[in-house]
Amino acid sequence: MDEFHLIKQIVEALGGHQRNKWVALGPGDDAAIIDAEADTQQVASIDTLLAGVHFPEHAPPTLIGYRALMVALSDLAAMAAAPRYCLVSLTLPADLFADSSARPLSGTEWVAQLAHGMGEAAESCQTAICGGNLSQGPLSITVSVHGVVDKSKWVGRSGACPGDVVYLSGPLGGAAACVRQQHFEVNPGQALDDVQEAYFHPKARFDWRERLIANASAAIDVSDGLLQDLGHVLDASRCGANLDVAQVPIARGASLHDALSGGDDYQILFTAGCDVPGAIPIGKIVAGSEMTLDGTPLHAYPGLEQYGYQHFKT
Amino acid sequence: MDEFHLIKQIVEALGGHQRNKWVALGPGDDAAIIDAEADTQQVASIDTLLAGVHFPEHAPPTLIGYRALMVALSDLAAMAAAPRYCLVSLTLPADLFADSSARPLSGTEWVAQLAHGMGEAAESCQTAICGGNLSQGPLSITVSVHGVVDKSKWVGRSGACPGDVVYLSGPLGGAAACVRQQHFEVNPGQALDDVQEAYFHPKARFDWRERLIANASAAIDVSDGLLQDLGHVLDASRCGANLDVAQVPIARGASLHDALSGGDDYQILFTAGCDVPGAIPIGKIVAGSEMTLDGTPLHAYPGLEQYGYQHFKT
Repeated sequence: MDEFHLIKQIVEALGGHQRNKWVALGPGDDAAIIDAEADTQQVASIDTLLAGVHFPEHAPPTLIGYRALMVALSDLAAMAAAPRYCLVSLTLPADLFADSSARPLSGTEWVAQLAHGMGEAAESCQTAICGGNLSQGPLSITVSVHGVVDKSKWVGRSGACPGDVVYLSGPLGGAAACVRQQHFEVNPGQALDDVQEAYFHPKARFDWRERLIANASAAIDVSDGLLQDLGHVLDASRCGANLDVAQVPIARGASLHDALSGGDDYQILFTAGCDVPGAIPIGKIVAGSEMTLDGTPLHAYPGLEQYGYQHFKT
Repeated sequence: MDEFHLIKQIVEALGGHQRNKWVALGPGDDAAIIDAEADTQQVASIDTLLAGVHFPEHAPPTLIGYRALMVALSDLAAMAAAPRYCLVSLTLPADLFADSSARPLSGTEWVAQLAHGMGEAAESCQTAICGGNLSQGPLSITVSVHGVVDKSKWVGRSGACPGDVVYLSGPLGGAAACVRQQHFEVNPGQALDDVQEAYFHPKARFDWRERLIANASAAIDVSDGLLQDLGHVLDASRCGANLDVAQVPIARGASLHDALSGGDDYQILFTAGCDVPGAIPIGKIVAGSEMTLDGTPLHAYPGLEQYGYQHFKT
């Protein structure tokens, strides 16, 4: 297997999703070319997912690829951007390509299925994977994602105001329940159950774009857990919040703790000074800097002394 | 050390180069915001550098950071694009942050110096590092780079024509000589020698942008080695070439073999049907698909039966 052959297989497996109407030149040159759009701003983010940390390496590669792209795209959805293009850098271990009858898929098949899953996610979000990179090393997937907003129409983390309602785009905790149970085994032909669906098929909520632009004072995607991500909004907006715990929507198969502290669901958490159709109100922005649950400070709330996830916390 | 503190240190070490006049929102939100420019196209590429493979992990982090950004930016220079912004995803090993009196730098110092080196490269190319990601794992650096070209003014690999002259922007082989000699030790206060300078301080050749736009039929940056990269141009352009070996400019401290087969110099290889000021002519594009050196087919040229570098070749 040589690199150039592998790239060809990947592009084939993308199923046409290496291009969209904005991509003027796709994979195969030093860089990709994408048409710029007047009166817009570009929105850009990058994410790395490591095997064994951010995804279970023995899961079906189609699901790994789908989820990797969606997780990265979610950051664009959280800014109320429309997705345009992605770049993917894969680091693949040499032993993926070693002969082994113990493995159900050859290295090339594995990578092609990964790319197929990415193509499915790209299709679902109408974006394209127009460039990438391959290197040999411990399995990881880095995705840089790029979208556009009409000039100044992006929604950041810093605009929440006392009096705003805190909203969610949907239920939380399903993906965290899947992780908590290490429930990653998927048999061919078998449908995913609820928590597996939440984990493997998150949906970057681009369907909320218009509503966020019209209504939201601040927004973030829930990737690290509701409490931690709300904390980021409060820090950036210099205000506090009180959540009504009974209003937090809990995904099927998840616990309250999963919903409050678990990441990986990629719903949008946002604030707005008005009613927003379809949004689930879970609390209020208040003056100060404290986060309370049912009026109780976070550090005193039973079972939540430690919450969220910090990659480097020691 | 927590992640958010580390991000703050990194942004400080960038020395202001997290922003430039196109960056409307830098690090700290879900995504960065960059102003789009009317009548342009975006140019985008991504590269991953792994410790021990693409850089020596015990080299000074300032040099590692500088080189990582330059190597990635070189792909934009090769398309004749002007750089605008970069995103950087760092994967850092936990033991970088473990207490150890054996290490000269703390983990935070190491990362800050890496970021400082990236800031220097950004300054030299007038670009900005406006977003990124941190995760914990084997040391690697992924950089996605983004530039612009006036509409349709990019230079790809596929436009070379028989009769065109093959040009280089400068001498080759210095970085390869440094790698061949594993000559990576740099003592504080000591100047880099020629081959170290070639390896650690490559220069993305944005100074060639106007000349490429005005003259070049095809271009590529020499990252994998002259012969292999010329091969990519010939494949894409469906033609052959004959090189005049005596004309290939060899960097100080390098051998002919370094210059023909070694990568990592990041000079621009391009083709043009006219004289180009300052460019070094090294051969001619011909009909057919064969690459010859002084008229001899590559596979028969003494010492070059195997050339270039393929990441996955087995």
